[in-house]
Amino acid sequence: MAKKVGIVGASGFAGIELVRVLLDHPEFHVECVVSDSLAGKPVSSAYPALTGKTELVFESQQSALKKLRACDVVFLAVPHTASLALTPTLLEANVTVVDLSADYRLKDPALFEKWYQTPHTSPELLAKAAFGLPELTRDELSEAAARYAQGEAVLVACAGCYPTATSLAAAPALREGLVEQGSRIVVDAISGVSGAGRKATERTHFCFADENAEAYSVGSHRHTPEIEQILSAQGRVVFTPHLAPFNRGLLSTVTMAVAPDRPMPTTAELVETYRAFYRTSPFVHVLDEGVLAKTASVVGTNEAHVSVVAHADTRSIIALGAIDNLGKGAATQAIQCANIVCGLAEDAGLRLTPLPF
Amino acid sequence: MAKKVGIVGASGFAGIELVRVLLDHPEFHVECVVSDSLAGKPVSSAYPALTGKTELVFESQQSALKKLRACDVVFLAVPHTASLALTPTLLEANVTVVDLSADYRLKDPALFEKWYQTPHTSPELLAKAAFGLPELTRDELSEAAARYAQGEAVLVACAGCYPTATSLAAAPALREGLVEQGSRIVVDAISGVSGAGRKATERTHFCFADENAEAYSVGSHRHTPEIEQILSAQGRVVFTPHLAPFNRGLLSTVTMAVAPDRPMPTTAELVETYRAFYRTSPFVHVLDEGVLAKTASVVGTNEAHVSVVAHADTRSIIALGAIDNLGKGAATQAIQCANIVCGLAEDAGLRLTPLPF
Amino acid sequence: MAKKVGIVGASGFAGIELVRVLLDHPEFHVECVVSDSLAGKPVSSAYPALTGKTELVFESQQSALKKLRACDVVFLAVPHTASLALTPTLLEANVTVVDLSADYRLKDPALFEKWYQTPHTSPELLAKAAFGLPELTRDELSEAAARYAQGEAVLVACAGCYPTATSLAAAPALREGLVEQGSRIVVDAISGVSGAGRKATERTHFCFADENAEAYSVGSHRHTPEIEQILSAQGRVVFTPHLAPFNRGLLSTVTMAVAPDRPMPTTAELVETYRAFYRTSPFVHVLDEGVLAKTASVVGTNEAHVSVVAHADTRSIIALGAIDNLGKGAATQAIQCANIVCGLAEDAGLRLTPLPF
Amino acid sequence: MAKKVGIVGASGFAGIELVRVLLDHPEFHVECVVSDSLAGKPVSSAYPALTGKTELVFESQQSALKKLRACDVVFLAVPHTASLALTPTLLEANVTVVDLSADYRLKDPALFEKWYQTPHTSPELLAKAAFGLPELTRDELSEAAARYAQGEAVLVACAGCYPTATSLAAAPALREGLVEQGSRIVVDAISGVSGAGRKATERTHFCFADENAEAYSVGSHRHTPEIEQILSAQGRVVFTPHLAPFNRGLLSTVTMAVAPDRPMPTTAELVETYRAFYRTSPFVHVLDEGVLAKTASVVGTNEAHVSVVAHADTRSIIALGAIDNLGKGAATQAIQCANIVCGLAEDAGLRLTPLPF
Repeated sequence: MAKKVGIVGASGFAGIELVRVLLDHPEFHVECVVSDSLAGKPVSSAYPALTGKTELVFESQQSALKKLRACDVVFLAVPHTASLALTPTLLEANVTVVDLSADYRLKDPALFEKWYQTPHTSPELLAKAAFGLPELTRDELSEAAARYAQGEAVLVACAGCYPTATSLAAAPALREGLVEQGSRIVVDAISGVSGAGRKATERTHFCFADENAEAYSVGSHRHTPEIEQILSAQGRVVFTPHLAPFNRGLLSTVTMAVAPDRPMPTTAELVETYRAFYRTSPFVHVLDEGVLAKTASVVGTNEAHVSVVAHADTRSIIALGAIDNLGKGAATQAIQCANIVCGLAEDAGLRLTPLPF
Repeated sequence: MAKKVGIVGASGFAGIELVRVLLDHPEFHVECVVSDSLAGKPVSSAYPALTGKTELVFESQQSALKKLRACDVVFLAVPHTASLALTPTLLEANVTVVDLSADYRLKDPALFEKWYQTPHTSPELLAKAAFGLPELTRDELSEAAARYAQGEAVLVACAGCYPTATSLAAAPALREGLVEQGSRIVVDAISGVSGAGRKATERTHFCFADENAEAYSVGSHRHTPEIEQILSAQGRVVFTPHLAPFNRGLLSTVTMAVAPDRPMPTTAELVETYRAFYRTSPFVHVLDEGVLAKTASVVGTNEAHVSVVAHADTRSIIALGAIDNLGKGAATQAIQCANIVCGLAEDAGLRLTPLPF
Repeated sequence: MAKKVGIVGASGFAGIELVRVLLDHPEFHVECVVSDSLAGKPVSSAYPALTGKTELVFESQQSALKKLRACDVVFLAVPHTASLALTPTLLEANVTVVDLSADYRLKDPALFEKWYQTPHTSPELLAKAAFGLPELTRDELSEAAARYAQGEAVLVACAGCYPTATSLAAAPALREGLVEQGSRIVVDAISGVSGAGRKATERTHFCFADENAEAYSVGSHRHTPEIEQILSAQGRVVFTPHLAPFNRGLLSTVTMAVAPDRPMPTTAELVETYRAFYRTSPFVHVLDEGVLAKTASVVGTNEAHVSVVAHADTRSIIALGAIDNLGKGAATQAIQCANIVCGLAEDAGLRLTPLPF
Repeated sequence: MAKKVGIVGASGFAGIELVRVLLDHPEFHVECVVSDSLAGKPVSSAYPALTGKTELVFESQQSALKKLRACDVVFLAVPHTASLALTPTLLEANVTVVDLSADYRLKDPALFEKWYQTPHTSPELLAKAAFGLPELTRDELSEAAARYAQGEAVLVACAGCYPTATSLAAAPALREGLVEQGSRIVVDAISGVSGAGRKATERTHFCFADENAEAYSVGSHRHTPEIEQILSAQGRVVFTPHLAPFNRGLLSTVTMAVAPDRPMPTTAELVETYRAFYRTSPFVHVLDEGVLAKTASVVGTNEAHVSVVAHADTRSIIALGAIDNLGKGAATQAIQCANIVCGLAEDAGLRLTPLPF
């Protein structure tokens, strides 16, 4: 029997992507889609691409509360702090929460308070929250799955979009000891405009976003501590996100220093190391030497394309990770986590073939 | 047992879209993908978005001939005249041909010669070719399906992209007798750049296509006689195609004069008429009054979104049709035709959920 | 000595384009730039492209009133009805007003009330307002120039963007009697997103505007009566505006029926007729037969590129007009009008060379 | 009296931008525009935006040779090695050469041979060639200007697009001794598609470039040794260029390590240092703290917008440089160099006001 799921924040970009993919999921059935701003409006009227695909109507959180509490799993695609308010309630009602917000990602509540300028109101949940980036946190998710199988409601704090692309690109080199201890990890990433969210702002205005590339939040983006946490690289990450004129997609370029005690690897060796690292990860494709990751290749999917290049002149490794910021960087990764936690096939509902160009 | 299909011209934009959709088709199995220009190259190397989705390798037409002859159905996504060369051979080998080219669309060989500046080399096939625009030519396709069921190889000449969008928008008004006899039908359509094909040319160069709108082939586009044929409107269509800076999608805006002997309909009445007309067509959505068709809503699908508006001041009907030029305008329509001809569910493999934005 | 000019609504897209061009104008000196929403902010901070180009700071209308009253000419780049409030005051202060809003365009106040759902509060000014589309209303502007030369403050109501492109494309055929009396004039136009203004809305959100073409305001756009007024074609215009994903530029495609009593012209003859018509208009370029107008060619300028094609099969004329919606469709046309009214060279400050691609 | 100039490679993107800007230059007069591929074609027919702006017609190099030899200055906007063939001849004819190609940029002929896989055929000219990046090589250009004033023909090897943006962003920190000796300099840059040139290729095809971000030439781009030469940072630069879907513009993000013996500067201090460094450079704007360089701000100009940020956590400096790759990165920088060498005002013909958005 299909599991009941709810989506809070369903009218935002990550939320509606959850809707789209879950509509075709073989094991999850969408019980309710919550959006306070569009409550009462049919999903297909806000997103006419879904005309004929669903009769779902957005509901306010208040009016949907009972349905949410009856769900097996609720996905929270909400701004930070909104999840702080909702998650404990849902867990108490024995509902598993897959949280796409930043609220339960950082294990250290002080770090949360520093970066989000607000105290964490349920720090006791941080230790129990499984971090949702399956390829790198499989243990945490398995442990949550075991608890879920025992009937316990669990909490997954899904990784952010930049941390996902960056960590998938950087982790093999770091975890295999190829990178110099304590060295700077330079992360320059490019996101499409959907990363700025559905709200109409000057930043998301077509005429300002079009025909432009720019950096933003230089040295101060909140994904920095998250990347450092995943990579165990506290105080080492220089992260500069950029915006470019495309809708969906995110490319992270990571430059790392090779450890002085290691021979400089060739690109071929790096590719081999990376492939071994991701051997059991169906959604990560380490591309052939000479082929470089492109965001267009992964739009609409849960795939990550990873390339890695050795630069002998400077003894550096350059690793590239391309994802759909709303797919592997948000909605489909959350579904992947839910699949794992609920004991389903990891790729249930996620074998999505992208447009070829 | 799955039917064997081949795709000739598989590396072009319509061809690779056929590959993408057929990879997930429940009843068709792709035996070979033919591309002389990319012969020997894996599909996923030319289109890295398909990495991990298929191991198919492009083959030259020469080397694939035997495989093609062993197929149940071959899709031809080739330039005009290439189909003239290949179709008779395949039919003789008892292979059903679903032709995406223009070679067998015009029933009158003289018209073909006039518009394509070359004589038709197999005019005897024109009468037998079913025109592939299922919502408007269901009878022809049913008749072909009956012959196929008898073991005969049949030929489907699929409608072009502009004719599809235009005819779906205009046909209900025309066939219901709402339009003035002999009056001009003004068709202004906007296509994304993929309509110009995969070949790198000045027209398809990013720096010339970007940030630009322009008309082309004004008064001389080869889709004109095709539109007139479908709509039984010889000598009445003024067709002006435009190019705008997006990848996939096509919007046709059709302006028609209301017949003098008919009361001016309201928009609501037109919507009702159109919905009745398309009641049994699962892929055509006539949008609510006040909602206008957008190309973004149908990219990657076989859907057509149709809007219709009454303009009382000039006694005109304005009808809009939005499709994916490579989907309903090419690849998925061809699959829809193949489904019908082969006796499968019309929507087999074609329930494609588009990205919501 | 330079004339003093002010710009109200200077932070909007047409307003800032006025600022840009007037900064380099040899005879006009910008005294103040008014924007209530950005009052106190330097122009170059709202529009960093102007860094180092100007020290101007936006002022509130209230605080700038005295300066505005001391100007020779004030440009109003404001939403409709805002000009109704401001124009009479300025004229009383003997300030010439060049109005880019719609408030004084329609000569018939009843028509204004019908289309703008508000009564006209200074209908007595309508008769005196010169309509600002110099190539087609040179007499009105000359008459205003004569009054200005006498020391009178005058009012110019500049044409809208769609009416400008459409009328420049259609007028020669209509005024030369080539078009059938009473026949439908079908206008399908494509605008870039800047036409929707600087306000951040769902329509102007990058993720909704990108990769999409759509029509809007079908059968109900407020530029319809304006086009009909310019072309003396009441009740004959079917106008369908479209939006496509580019920033600036507007292409209007006009389809007209050839008068039954006239021989069908060739394209070459039409080009000749059009060139004769625009012989004294430095900003209109009638392109060679076979060359079609592109919006990219005119961005950032006051130029209009016009193409015209004969379609013998349907006895139709297809005329295309490409302009920059913010240039010839707004800011630079306003400056052209101001030049004429003030007795300057028509092209003073307007010899703008566009980017070549 | 105006100086005679010729442009070789005038139909390419940098070449036509030279044409556009030189048409309005007060002191240079374009004698001939050379393009073998478009010889005989009017400039305005290849680039219709220039309709009415020029009557120039492209000439073949062979037929223009006499005119070129009679020029004061010839601009070479040609592929590498083409300049090797032409420059010595022109210099012998006492024609000053402003070379936009890479042929005379690297001072070490061995380095040229290594990166361009061809021996340098006139290495004796390398020592005399002034490197054209005026803000950083003013001495070389002044020396060339002195020789030019003596009647000598001189050679300027203009900096490439990536080296220009990167070096303008990095040089102040490096030259002021803020950066750790021998440390890695990580350069991640994003270019618009025009950087790939006018040739229609798969890379420049709209449908492949659109909606995509990707890196290319990772670890192997030929601009690497050029950046290292300008910055005196041999073997230290990790340069990863990226392509994003816009036409013109280039953003370089440079991450540098602060020298261990220097106190960590604040962003405000860095801004001050940078402003002092560029005090006499009219085309470089160091933006206020908190304002970040955007490519859209500089398109069509010779300006560079530079931002700099201190990142205390990792003791890093992040510097951003935005230019128009065809302006400051190619054509207008070449004109700036020519101005200096010819003893004109540095900004003659280069006070170009960009579109405000």
